[in-house]
Amino acid sequence: MNAEIVGVGTELLLGQIANTNARWMSEHLAAIGVDVLHHQVVGDNLDRIVEALGNAAGRADVVLVTGGLGPTEDDITRDALAELLGVELEFHPEIESMLRARFASIGSDAMPENNLRQAGVPKGARYVMPLRGTAPGIVAELGDGTRVYAMAGVPLEMVEVMEGTVLPELAAAAGPSTLVSTVLRCTGIGESRVAEVLADLFEASSNPSVAYLATGGEVKVRVSAKAATRPRADALIAPLADEVLRRLGDVVFSKTDESLAEAVGRLLRSSRRTLCFAESLTGGGLGARITSVPGSSEYFAGSAVVYTAEAKERILGVSHETIASSGVVSEACAREMAARARKAFGSDVALAVTGSAGPDRHGNAEPGTVWLALDAGDLTHARLLRAPGERDRVRRWTEQAGLDLVRRYLEGAALPTSDRPI
Amino acid sequence: MNAEIVGVGTELLLGQIANTNARWMSEHLAAIGVDVLHHQVVGDNLDRIVEALGNAAGRADVVLVTGGLGPTEDDITRDALAELLGVELEFHPEIESMLRARFASIGSDAMPENNLRQAGVPKGARYVMPLRGTAPGIVAELGDGTRVYAMAGVPLEMVEVMEGTVLPELAAAAGPSTLVSTVLRCTGIGESRVAEVLADLFEASSNPSVAYLATGGEVKVRVSAKAATRPRADALIAPLADEVLRRLGDVVFSKTDESLAEAVGRLLRSSRRTLCFAESLTGGGLGARITSVPGSSEYFAGSAVVYTAEAKERILGVSHETIASSGVVSEACAREMAARARKAFGSDVALAVTGSAGPDRHGNAEPGTVWLALDAGDLTHARLLRAPGERDRVRRWTEQAGLDLVRRYLEGAALPTSDRPI
Repeated sequence: MNAEIVGVGTELLLGQIANTNARWMSEHLAAIGVDVLHHQVVGDNLDRIVEALGNAAGRADVVLVTGGLGPTEDDITRDALAELLGVELEFHPEIESMLRARFASIGSDAMPENNLRQAGVPKGARYVMPLRGTAPGIVAELGDGTRVYAMAGVPLEMVEVMEGTVLPELAAAAGPSTLVSTVLRCTGIGESRVAEVLADLFEASSNPSVAYLATGGEVKVRVSAKAATRPRADALIAPLADEVLRRLGDVVFSKTDESLAEAVGRLLRSSRRTLCFAESLTGGGLGARITSVPGSSEYFAGSAVVYTAEAKERILGVSHETIASSGVVSEACAREMAARARKAFGSDVALAVTGSAGPDRHGNAEPGTVWLALDAGDLTHARLLRAPGERDRVRRWTEQAGLDLVRRYLEGAALPTSDRPI
Repeated sequence: MNAEIVGVGTELLLGQIANTNARWMSEHLAAIGVDVLHHQVVGDNLDRIVEALGNAAGRADVVLVTGGLGPTEDDITRDALAELLGVELEFHPEIESMLRARFASIGSDAMPENNLRQAGVPKGARYVMPLRGTAPGIVAELGDGTRVYAMAGVPLEMVEVMEGTVLPELAAAAGPSTLVSTVLRCTGIGESRVAEVLADLFEASSNPSVAYLATGGEVKVRVSAKAATRPRADALIAPLADEVLRRLGDVVFSKTDESLAEAVGRLLRSSRRTLCFAESLTGGGLGARITSVPGSSEYFAGSAVVYTAEAKERILGVSHETIASSGVVSEACAREMAARARKAFGSDVALAVTGSAGPDRHGNAEPGTVWLALDAGDLTHARLLRAPGERDRVRRWTEQAGLDLVRRYLEGAALPTSDRPI
């Protein structure tokens, strides 16, 4: 079964909001094995909505429309749907009763007359009474067997109709077919290298299938399979996921779609160790990443964000001589920052980063030059990173390289010495 | 002039990411007076990409395509464009040279052969050499005068082609009509309150016009005008922007679309003062925000991220008695953190935040309970914040309230004492 999503709303075309509804719907449709082949967005214009719905109905089994079901003059999805079906809107007194009760319940008895528009449903179509909001969902069958679901654009109201009506009905219609995915996440490797290593698996890909996606210094590899039951889908996935893991090796930091901060947190928790940071160019970004995970105070003590040379001396006690002789961006300074932070916080493991994010130099360092050091008492390690690109990217790659250094240490994997970011 | 945006990428149809590119592009096209009438998204499928481009070209003056220009087998926007134009792909050795140089510059000499795909451009089309990434942008003219711009889907690379090529060319083609906008940014006020205060201005809105948008603890108010020249547009905007500012008052932290971190940085720089933080629940987020601005080492010393009670004592020297008697989330603890951080970093101004982001308590504090303290030597101030919602939101609102407290102090504005977030 395949589906198409049509978003209605001029606010989307003006760029005031992103089409996050289409993302949520697509993700949940994929999870029940429905293929989404197109998204469309049109404004609050009758002809263009009818045209978009017609195009969608011509190529998809199911059309999902969001938006344009509100009470105002520019909410015209109901009218467009009636025109597509070639029927009139029919007034439903029981919807009017619901609307008046909804207004009364919030202490507002004067319902604007405009709101009665929401009691109109194309003749012959079903409607779904809303629990949240005031817009009923609409379900219509076209002559060729295509089904159209229309629902409000307000995210919580869309979710209500999707979870209460659309997903259960489509899952039932799709029969006993389940799509299961496993996501392996990697860092320290480029997308094109992943593509090369997995090329034959990707090409042979149908069921199970392999896909990958690069974002923010990471590559996600998704292995998916469709089968009648979850255990059967799992059985299709397992050997392929194992092969992907074997080929990619220790650049994989999670086999269960965890973030890098979650993976590091899991390893710290299971080994009962604590972590602290000493951060210069990331400015607190490492701390913000690791504490984005609930419960991180169990294993994370804190971070000394020492942005200036003076702060490195005053807060951490990095020696003036190290900074004067080697500079703030140096192996010696990074190692001293890590050692001092470990002692100050009383943590098992300390990670320090110092470098220039650009556009200006930090000390004598060119933008993109970063030193990282890990100090775990029994083991210390430092590496140079040369991160290309702009300020935000250098900071992001430094965070990735830093968290991954901790992850590798905790897993007993090889520690990188190369200065290349990927 | 009207435009249509076509996003290419199966990851969009699987709901792995939202189409934030279409939002950014739509917003920036609207700003130069180009009307966007449709968005489409299709997967990495040649026939469907060609069909989508054909439909778009049939109804728009300009078609903007994002995605599918990467180095891998499933990056086929180049091929689809060639098919639409009815031409072959032409190999450009100068693009190959750029690609090899790009790989060499990151110390990687073995460029995967796959990457040479990026040196192919439909015959007769222009290309735009990238500064970031490796995918050249492509500009093609169809027989009927429709222009197609294709660019990478990676947001920073898309922005590079839009800002460097697409927006300037379309603005020039749109002729002597200029749309000018001024953006006032506010924090500490809700969207519905802004809507109430500006209701009559919003309703009278045509040219100049007022619009607003709430995101992440801020409300942006945009005042726009269209005129034949920039000075005329500015003359239309000025009185309306003044009226908006007069009504909103000191919740406006920038009249020039600065981020809150930029506004605080500007005020610190102009008053030659320095800042430091002591952060608990934000975990380094305040430091990361203030250092997102280039040159921030001029006024930002650092942050003591003290995530646990022990770290508050060890790193900052908060007294054990304060923590034992008042708790880690208390006015006394926040004030002591700020005073100690100011002394430790030797800064003019210190801001401390301590609270529970949830879902668990921090000490005895319920999730959402946060104490903020500012210490500037001659003046100290503390406030309680009760931030509703989930972990990410509580952290974000705490950062906003913290940066705004510094901003208000530096501007000599009233300092908030209420515990309400907005």
